[in-house]
Amino acid sequence: MTATGLSTQPARGMRDFLPEDVRRREYVVGVIRRVYERYGFEPLETPAVENIETLLGKYGEEGNKLIFKILKRGEHEASGTADLALRYDLTVPLARVVAEHQAKLPKFFKRYQIQPVWRADRPARGRFREFYQCDIDAIGSTSTVVEVEVLSGVSEVLHELGFQDFVIRLNDRRLLTAMLEVAGVEAPRHGDALIALDKLDKIGADGVAAEFAARQIEPAAIGKLLPLFGGGAGATGANGAILRALATFIGAHETGQAAVGSLESMLALAGPTPASGHLRIDPSLARGLSYYTGAIMEIQVADLAGSLGGGGRYDNLIGMFLGRDVPACGFSLGLERILVVMGERGMFPADLAGAGCDVLVTIWNAGAMDDALGLAGEFRQAGLRVEVYPEADKIGKQLKYASGRQVPFVAVVGDDERAGGTVSLKDLRSGTQHTVRRAEAAAFIGVHVNR
Amino acid sequence: MTATGLSTQPARGMRDFLPEDVRRREYVVGVIRRVYERYGFEPLETPAVENIETLLGKYGEEGNKLIFKILKRGEHEASGTADLALRYDLTVPLARVVAEHQAKLPKFFKRYQIQPVWRADRPARGRFREFYQCDIDAIGSTSTVVEVEVLSGVSEVLHELGFQDFVIRLNDRRLLTAMLEVAGVEAPRHGDALIALDKLDKIGADGVAAEFAARQIEPAAIGKLLPLFGGGAGATGANGAILRALATFIGAHETGQAAVGSLESMLALAGPTPASGHLRIDPSLARGLSYYTGAIMEIQVADLAGSLGGGGRYDNLIGMFLGRDVPACGFSLGLERILVVMGERGMFPADLAGAGCDVLVTIWNAGAMDDALGLAGEFRQAGLRVEVYPEADKIGKQLKYASGRQVPFVAVVGDDERAGGTVSLKDLRSGTQHTVRRAEAAAFIGVHVNR
Repeated sequence: MTATGLSTQPARGMRDFLPEDVRRREYVVGVIRRVYERYGFEPLETPAVENIETLLGKYGEEGNKLIFKILKRGEHEASGTADLALRYDLTVPLARVVAEHQAKLPKFFKRYQIQPVWRADRPARGRFREFYQCDIDAIGSTSTVVEVEVLSGVSEVLHELGFQDFVIRLNDRRLLTAMLEVAGVEAPRHGDALIALDKLDKIGADGVAAEFAARQIEPAAIGKLLPLFGGGAGATGANGAILRALATFIGAHETGQAAVGSLESMLALAGPTPASGHLRIDPSLARGLSYYTGAIMEIQVADLAGSLGGGGRYDNLIGMFLGRDVPACGFSLGLERILVVMGERGMFPADLAGAGCDVLVTIWNAGAMDDALGLAGEFRQAGLRVEVYPEADKIGKQLKYASGRQVPFVAVVGDDERAGGTVSLKDLRSGTQHTVRRAEAAAFIGVHVNR
Repeated sequence: MTATGLSTQPARGMRDFLPEDVRRREYVVGVIRRVYERYGFEPLETPAVENIETLLGKYGEEGNKLIFKILKRGEHEASGTADLALRYDLTVPLARVVAEHQAKLPKFFKRYQIQPVWRADRPARGRFREFYQCDIDAIGSTSTVVEVEVLSGVSEVLHELGFQDFVIRLNDRRLLTAMLEVAGVEAPRHGDALIALDKLDKIGADGVAAEFAARQIEPAAIGKLLPLFGGGAGATGANGAILRALATFIGAHETGQAAVGSLESMLALAGPTPASGHLRIDPSLARGLSYYTGAIMEIQVADLAGSLGGGGRYDNLIGMFLGRDVPACGFSLGLERILVVMGERGMFPADLAGAGCDVLVTIWNAGAMDDALGLAGEFRQAGLRVEVYPEADKIGKQLKYASGRQVPFVAVVGDDERAGGTVSLKDLRSGTQHTVRRAEAAAFIGVHVNR
């Protein structure tokens, strides 16, 4: 709040990004985009605003409450009804786009989409009301090659950003269903049981047992399920043993065995890919109550409570728009959490800090403004990033300004330089000064700022 | 609308961007960003959603009606009141940010911002409800060097995109005020008179006279003003003559003469810059009723009714948030209109079309999936964009798919190739086939797709 009584802060849970923030975000987005393109994903963008019916009923009851709704305009505004809403994720708009444009799209449509979404969640550390999702999705095939390509692409992104220690937890919704059925949990209680089991690493076995009891879930089931979950916290090397134990437990359950088979196939195919060594079969992973129908995945790093991203197979969602099912599998990286961890670990390249500018061109006096603009033009033609001090001011003041801005070079053309066809270049990092011929000044700066 | 009864179209006035659309947009945004960085502007981003009080009252009565308003959440939702709104332009959020962060920002803060804005306008050709603005603004100086840098930067963007024929109309709000005062238009009628004069090239002199009459503006004024406007349609070479005629007309009007002086200074300083030859003094340019206080500018190209962008000096807007005035000058390029004209004129590079993918790796049979993924990994390590056909399918079908996608190369590793340590590469553009050693395959494709 200022003297004018008008707040100058962004809305609650939203953020302004100053230049260094934007550079860090752009750096990460650039890496993500480059890797996704190497994996054959193509860019898609959808509007921030969707018809409200497109979004309602896709994210469960809790999700519906978190959707930002937009008032009708004009004469309808007073009615207080909403006809539009802000994008809540990137998957439902993708399903709509695939249904709308299917004739134009390739049979195996692979798209990436890096855009903000909005949720009226309670803001907390690392949780904002406007945040970016970086999604890849592959449409049109039920082959496990799709899952492996997704896992491999996401792993390659994390490697290129400098993450080495991440684990991708891997499970399958069909396997979860089989486990619950065999353990004796009745079908209407599956949702509640999954929510409780999902919290295992937070609330422990006793906590899960208490939640089962509170939700009238057969108490004997927990004794059967928990032994299967022990391996979840173990090493990735235990995957084979965990899968064998699960297969034994579910016995002849057909879709459950299919899920075990597809997880085995993923582990084998991922061998020669960047996902190798990062996959951990975790039977406790449930990924909430969303639209997943097969494999589910979630990335964890040691020092972050939440996940860096997650995804899975959803073979029915597009059908909600199209009227017939189209198989699909995708993954969403959370940009804000990646940035939080990279910031805490000091993983950003050093050159993202500083002025974002290579040289400040000073103005010697009021009569030399045109010459300063001309020199700036020459520097720009050479690809340098150039700021012109906008006013004729004491040179000392202009130097001080450049120094405060951390601009590496200052260019001065005084009367002597002009007469001699030279430029004085002051390197503010070393304090050295160089007088060079004007035609060579841009190249001199370029070499010393490494552009 | 589909069999499910759920619409698959985007909301009214909004658009989905399929891969080729996104590539064209990214290409233009990339050029704009690079040029703006060469001019020393730094990136800023602000939230899509602002507190509603931040926006209301900044865009005039018409603007207020076009703001998308967001319903309060939770228990307040039923009240039908709005507390948030979608960003309407990038200038008001900038003013808020400058007021909030002034202690952190350099004295001469120069930022660029390329983000969407939303207006509940009637959709029409080239007019959407979600559209991108590409803004530069320079804060903190009243020097005309600022205007010249802005004009120069915008001109350089247009040159790099391939525009040669654009004209930047240039005027000054203080000069307009002086002209109206000297012509005898009373101060409370200035706004109406400017709106009428702004339409001169659309409705002609008689139309303007009729609007003056309808708005009770001194009829004699129009006879005095119109002769000054004749030059507006003339060549850029007439700038000197137009300014002299205006200076003569306004006589001793002090702020008017200051405006003439600053326009003269801009024309002189722009001489050695990319704006040279594109500036045209146009006394009829008014730029609506917004926050401008000095120079105003607008870009025109021959085959577009509207403008490609506009801007000007606004020395009071930041003061609405900060409580004391801070000088500022900026320019906003309209991305959608630039794209429309570039599309009509065929100005996009050819390589933006096509698959966005260099090679499709086929799957020889179900047992060769791991080998296909390994080969894809080798190609990706070399920087190629690689799609893996996700299923073991007839090779002919896989080739047909690649051809339909316009992927330039298809890689096949059959039993013979595997035994011989080679890869068969089919160039789908020429129809030729090459069998190369596996270790050299990536480089072969790279050379032939020019990556």
